[in-house]
Amino acid sequence: MDRLDSKQLYDMWTELGMEVKLHDKLLENSEKLHKRNYLWQTNRPIAMKLFDTALHDSHGQRVAEIVDYRNAGGKSIGTFCIYVPDEIAMAADVLNIPLCGGTGFTVDYADKVLPRDICPLVRSTFGMAISGTCPYKTLKDFVLGETTCDAKKKTWDLFGIRSLEVPQKKNPVDKALWLGEVKSFMAQLEDLSGVKVTAENLREAIKKQNRKRSILNSISAFRKLENPPISGLDALLISQVALNMDIDAFILAGEMLLKELEERTDKSISAYSAPGVRVLMAGTPSPMGYAKIHAAAEMSGLRVVMDESCTGLRYSRGNVPEDLQTVEEMVVAIADRYFDIDCACFSPNSERMENVRAVIEEFNVEGVIHNILQYCHGFNVEAGAQDSIFSEINVPSLKIVSDYSQEDMEQIKLRLEAFGGIVENTRGDR
Amino acid sequence: MDRLDSKQLYDMWTELGMEVKLHDKLLENSEKLHKRNYLWQTNRPIAMKLFDTALHDSHGQRVAEIVDYRNAGGKSIGTFCIYVPDEIAMAADVLNIPLCGGTGFTVDYADKVLPRDICPLVRSTFGMAISGTCPYKTLKDFVLGETTCDAKKKTWDLFGIRSLEVPQKKNPVDKALWLGEVKSFMAQLEDLSGVKVTAENLREAIKKQNRKRSILNSISAFRKLENPPISGLDALLISQVALNMDIDAFILAGEMLLKELEERTDKSISAYSAPGVRVLMAGTPSPMGYAKIHAAAEMSGLRVVMDESCTGLRYSRGNVPEDLQTVEEMVVAIADRYFDIDCACFSPNSERMENVRAVIEEFNVEGVIHNILQYCHGFNVEAGAQDSIFSEINVPSLKIVSDYSQEDMEQIKLRLEAFGGIVENTRGDR
Repeated sequence: MDRLDSKQLYDMWTELGMEVKLHDKLLENSEKLHKRNYLWQTNRPIAMKLFDTALHDSHGQRVAEIVDYRNAGGKSIGTFCIYVPDEIAMAADVLNIPLCGGTGFTVDYADKVLPRDICPLVRSTFGMAISGTCPYKTLKDFVLGETTCDAKKKTWDLFGIRSLEVPQKKNPVDKALWLGEVKSFMAQLEDLSGVKVTAENLREAIKKQNRKRSILNSISAFRKLENPPISGLDALLISQVALNMDIDAFILAGEMLLKELEERTDKSISAYSAPGVRVLMAGTPSPMGYAKIHAAAEMSGLRVVMDESCTGLRYSRGNVPEDLQTVEEMVVAIADRYFDIDCACFSPNSERMENVRAVIEEFNVEGVIHNILQYCHGFNVEAGAQDSIFSEINVPSLKIVSDYSQEDMEQIKLRLEAFGGIVENTRGDR
Repeated sequence: MDRLDSKQLYDMWTELGMEVKLHDKLLENSEKLHKRNYLWQTNRPIAMKLFDTALHDSHGQRVAEIVDYRNAGGKSIGTFCIYVPDEIAMAADVLNIPLCGGTGFTVDYADKVLPRDICPLVRSTFGMAISGTCPYKTLKDFVLGETTCDAKKKTWDLFGIRSLEVPQKKNPVDKALWLGEVKSFMAQLEDLSGVKVTAENLREAIKKQNRKRSILNSISAFRKLENPPISGLDALLISQVALNMDIDAFILAGEMLLKELEERTDKSISAYSAPGVRVLMAGTPSPMGYAKIHAAAEMSGLRVVMDESCTGLRYSRGNVPEDLQTVEEMVVAIADRYFDIDCACFSPNSERMENVRAVIEEFNVEGVIHNILQYCHGFNVEAGAQDSIFSEINVPSLKIVSDYSQEDMEQIKLRLEAFGGIVENTRGDR
């Protein structure tokens, strides 16, 4: 579709019942942060412009696409978690719109209904809805939560939102429960769209989602290089917008970027202008709008060479086999793929321990940053369990607990700089 | 057994490997708080002395009993939740020692291993273990957690503690999962003690636990009266020590108290010296050592006529049928009874909404206090959902989020006094 001009955008937002003036301020704030967090980088791939635009479009052109889609009878749901099986939504012809908020601008608007001491992601999301600055508020047939943490689980109850039950252990009985949830999800979406999930449309959806994840993983692979042609910050931006962009547009942009990254590698063009300690960002997600910790790290001379959060490897790891024959086989394989996600909601979360250890080796990680959104008890406490593994293999770690406010940026930079120094000094010990 | 004298107690604590000097300070602190919270009351039943003593004994004589029991080959486990089925532990001849900490004295000792911003109950418990002030640390064969909240769930992982999976919904598949957990619990305990659970010993255990719960419920029933012969504070103390006392000793003490409460009722002896607004205490537990909010409420002229927490009705509600024939039937009935507990860990938690509404009616409740331990996202967010029901039936509520520190006591009293005034002023509206 054609790009909307400024007047058309404002008309659209007004028609969507948004608080347009407040939304203007939100956009202004977002652009300012995007400039500060991302645009200071001096040696970005040109193709990153596509993802900058996607970020910009997430409240504009992308919304217009979805308005069009729904006006033509398309169905959509709003979700908050990477456990929601994209393949099934796609096969049932239902658009899944992830809604997790990353803007600090709306956090305090949640005060009317939610406690101040729950995670900023939940508060930002519902603050957007409450303040009339979420363009997707009316662009969905229903919202689907999940039971991955106390704060989200109880927020669904408060708003009467249905949810998928993600179990808490990884025993056979839990796997069976989860398969049941995935099947019930499929039935709900078939019911919504009137489109039956078939072996054909599901196989196509599997291939498409595999393609998307493979692109993310291929981009990540460049970060294993001694001098990565893409920064950790830009890789984060790609992961963030991957959840919002039209999948075909994302695949196209991703392929262009991959080609450029190959060329940059051939020409030894690094994203970084100075050497730097290689760190893994571990823990909670950084949804679109939130890049403070990644920016602080790379501004402080660290290189974020991998991110194992839900806006990183946790989202892209693991594909679904493409050679399955029946819907049942495919649904089981999809349920398995999502069940393997190593969220801190599982107890014990042994897979994460193994996964992180492998990532450290594969990406030549020298230090780990526990990037923890405040009041996320799950990842916060689990950082302690992870540290006992890191100390076994002599990998230093630093825990940063923060939120969507900007006040602590400079303080965090200081801590990260000091951490970089510590890692450099212990290089000989490994 | 004979009561240990002071020297014998110190010898025992030393043999248990405790930090005796620090423990002395903890006891001093506990006695001071017990005096402040409970002993200001002017018209307590005489039998309350039995429960004051039980509180005092929880770190002394009760420990000695358990040392004796274990020296004679008895088995015991440490637990943290009222979802652990007491009947099964008792039938398998395993003593269940609830370990939830209620003392603020040890909270900061948890800093070494746990974040500061998780609930004080978890921090107090592990702070006791870490500081060497928990007398039960070595008096158990294993510790068994459960998955009722993020903070506890991840703390088990951190310490390698096994846990029961309490599911998050109340669908048939969850009920089946829970039954499996209860059966696995039984197998673990049979394995530990070498005692097989039979129809006979399980029926006896059901009867005994029913008797204990019935006593608690009979005591509660007196609080429905216009002038209750027992205060909310004393009822809390009874609930707190019920989790620690030898069950036979508890039943004996409870029966003595019940008799006295009947006599007091006949003679119109009230526990309160002045009229007061009738409130329900709702939300998180107040484990042994923590009575700040209840004390603040009754010191401010309110009457806590019911407590629906885990140290209140949530623990005593619902008995298991005594006329069942097979172990299987009984285990299913036990699993059902515990599955019906209306903890905020369930989503949605509709049963709690219905239960609280019934309690309000039955106990002539005029106002509700949401008593929320800080960082308990579950009960904190759920308070909002409850409020929408309370406003439907014109029952005012007040949310108090606090922890085990004592600094906010006076401020909380002021808020509770003001709340009492509000309830009095709106009496005409109902």
